[in-house]
Amino acid sequence: MDPAVHAGEAVDARIVRTRRDVLGATIDELVDGGWDAVTHARVARRAGYSKATLYAHWPDRLALVREAFATFGRMPHHEATGDLRGDLVGELVSFRSAMTEHRLDRALAVLAERAGPTPELDEVRAAFVGDGERPMRQILGGLLSGARLEAVTAMLCGSIVHPVLLRGTTPSDEEITTAVDVVLAGLAEARG
Amino acid sequence: MDPAVHAGEAVDARIVRTRRDVLGATIDELVDGGWDAVTHARVARRAGYSKATLYAHWPDRLALVREAFATFGRMPHHEATGDLRGDLVGELVSFRSAMTEHRLDRALAVLAERAGPTPELDEVRAAFVGDGERPMRQILGGLLSGARLEAVTAMLCGSIVHPVLLRGTTPSDEEITTAVDVVLAGLAEARG
Repeated sequence: MDPAVHAGEAVDARIVRTRRDVLGATIDELVDGGWDAVTHARVARRAGYSKATLYAHWPDRLALVREAFATFGRMPHHEATGDLRGDLVGELVSFRSAMTEHRLDRALAVLAERAGPTPELDEVRAAFVGDGERPMRQILGGLLSGARLEAVTAMLCGSIVHPVLLRGTTPSDEEITTAVDVVLAGLAEARG
Repeated sequence: MDPAVHAGEAVDARIVRTRRDVLGATIDELVDGGWDAVTHARVARRAGYSKATLYAHWPDRLALVREAFATFGRMPHHEATGDLRGDLVGELVSFRSAMTEHRLDRALAVLAERAGPTPELDEVRAAFVGDGERPMRQILGGLLSGARLEAVTAMLCGSIVHPVLLRGTTPSDEEITTAVDVVLAGLAEARG
């Protein structure tokens, strides 16, 4: 292989690694300590890089947080099969897992708390939540539109968000399947 | 009137006023600046009382916040009429109003963000959210129990919580009535 190409690949790999380490450390700081904990100094220390490296790639805190959420947003979702009930239940179960296993509960709580008083975070929250809702909207989009799509998306997402963020509990499998079954029966009734 | 009774009433009125002023200022500080903003010094300044007065009634920050939320929790709810659909829509509309007009959105976001890392706040959140959910559970309780009651409560509360806390938007009247109609049709279908 051409040595120049080889060197280029090594540089690329190093950049990928730096990004992964720094953006992961950004989410970790945010989740552990909230918005105020995200400083270049703390993230650099946690990720094991110099502050200069961080400033070179991400000039301010918002740049760090925006890119960290864009990366964090790529979390596992349910693989849609075309079976409406199974896909809705699977997507809600994935959402619940992300809350407990990937600390999505903390990330969303920090965004909810900080986006109001920190307007720059509004777009970060909108992009992150929009990414998170997309698979649910794709599953429902063939069936619903307008106020029905909005109401059902809000109810199904809300059936996870409400207990997790406001009670610190997760819905059981039975509660998730019951929510989906009530909604599907209600939609069938209204169409029928 | 017996002058001693009269004097006692004046003292009572003063205590009531002090409590109202201080607990209101506590919520205002929390909503404006988050958990860290709730200090005896800041709340005393905002309410116009001495720090000594505050410490005499509320020895620590948790005592202040616990009582402030207990008072704040008594917010206007829909007056139930016995008409299931009207009562559910009315309760969700009241919830939406409390979010936008009484800054309930901020109070819930602060609780969601702080209750995890601050275990003393867990009981405050549980009591506050329990109070808030009670009218909804009373409306549904004649009809549902177990996983169905939990799933429907989470979906209907979540239909307000999800857009308000995670998108910074409020559901329209049409979205609220659609949510209630889908749920009621689903429950009727499952029973029928």
